[in-house]
Amino acid sequence: MVNYPNGKKMTSHTSVTSFGGRGMALEEDINLTNTYYLDMDRAVIHKKPTPVTIVKVDYPRRSAAKITEAYFKLPSTTDYNGIYRNKYIDFEAKECASSTSFPLKSIHEHQIRHLDSVLRHGAIAFVIVRFTKLNRTFFVPAEVMIPYIQALDRRSIPYEWFEANGYEIAYNYVKPVDYLRIVDQLYFQENK
Amino acid sequence: MVNYPNGKKMTSHTSVTSFGGRGMALEEDINLTNTYYLDMDRAVIHKKPTPVTIVKVDYPRRSAAKITEAYFKLPSTTDYNGIYRNKYIDFEAKECASSTSFPLKSIHEHQIRHLDSVLRHGAIAFVIVRFTKLNRTFFVPAEVMIPYIQALDRRSIPYEWFEANGYEIAYNYVKPVDYLRIVDQLYFQENK
Repeated sequence: MVNYPNGKKMTSHTSVTSFGGRGMALEEDINLTNTYYLDMDRAVIHKKPTPVTIVKVDYPRRSAAKITEAYFKLPSTTDYNGIYRNKYIDFEAKECASSTSFPLKSIHEHQIRHLDSVLRHGAIAFVIVRFTKLNRTFFVPAEVMIPYIQALDRRSIPYEWFEANGYEIAYNYVKPVDYLRIVDQLYFQENK
Repeated sequence: MVNYPNGKKMTSHTSVTSFGGRGMALEEDINLTNTYYLDMDRAVIHKKPTPVTIVKVDYPRRSAAKITEAYFKLPSTTDYNGIYRNKYIDFEAKECASSTSFPLKSIHEHQIRHLDSVLRHGAIAFVIVRFTKLNRTFFVPAEVMIPYIQALDRRSIPYEWFEANGYEIAYNYVKPVDYLRIVDQLYFQENK
């Protein structure tokens, strides 16, 4: 909830990654995992930079340009994409504070449209949702989640739905969110 | 940077896209082209946001969070990626002010490594270079450019090399940089 207008007064943060939005711990876990994949040359998947609208920049003499006024912008795509085993990979990751349901407002409508669009062009697309209090992280294929959301007449997805339709991502020390293991199983017909 | 007659430093810009670095006109042309591809549902290819390191954010009551201190960061990947005809697409675009050669420092070494890496994983990867004074825009496949750069014992690529090894992208009003036409020819064996 850090980056949108909510009337809350807060003036500084120590960690840069926290600005991107909610779900900082999950984001860090995924970044670690992506770095591991990259180091092992298994996949090339990156988080996109947080989109900002830059309004003012100062150019102090002899030092780096300093942005002095900028605003967070709604992302028009998902946060993560890249390539794995010749396939285009695209996903969004969200933490969820509730233990009973995942509020749909966590994922913007244009992100759903984006996932739907890349799917049609041949992507492997999915959403990673972590229920922070339960410490459970689920992989949900976009082709499963999108039709469900479109037919939904409520504003949240019950936790049980993730248990029934998602694939739990087991924690692993070196790759905290080893989602490619699920990708291998689902899209490359591999066991383990 | 430009100072106003009153000695004040110029601190604001009207266009957001100009902050990403050089090559604004080319960037706008590519963005227009990508929007066209997206509208036609031909491909889903986006420019990544300009990476910035955010240092300070203010949260004024009842209004949007305001970033008051941030710095431009070197990108760790290329600027553009997405999906087209089931393939992962990845490219960098650069304007070149010289009419005789393209300085290698325009492309960061980690961007070359990134292109090399996605190529090995099955991407269609390339560089778009526009010689602004000549108003000519070339598509150069990464698999052609990378070995050439690695063997090069100078710090720039002569213009003639682009004429001999690149594919000129003809200007088109609705898709100013219609690079997918070249992609079709080179990677999908199609004539036009």
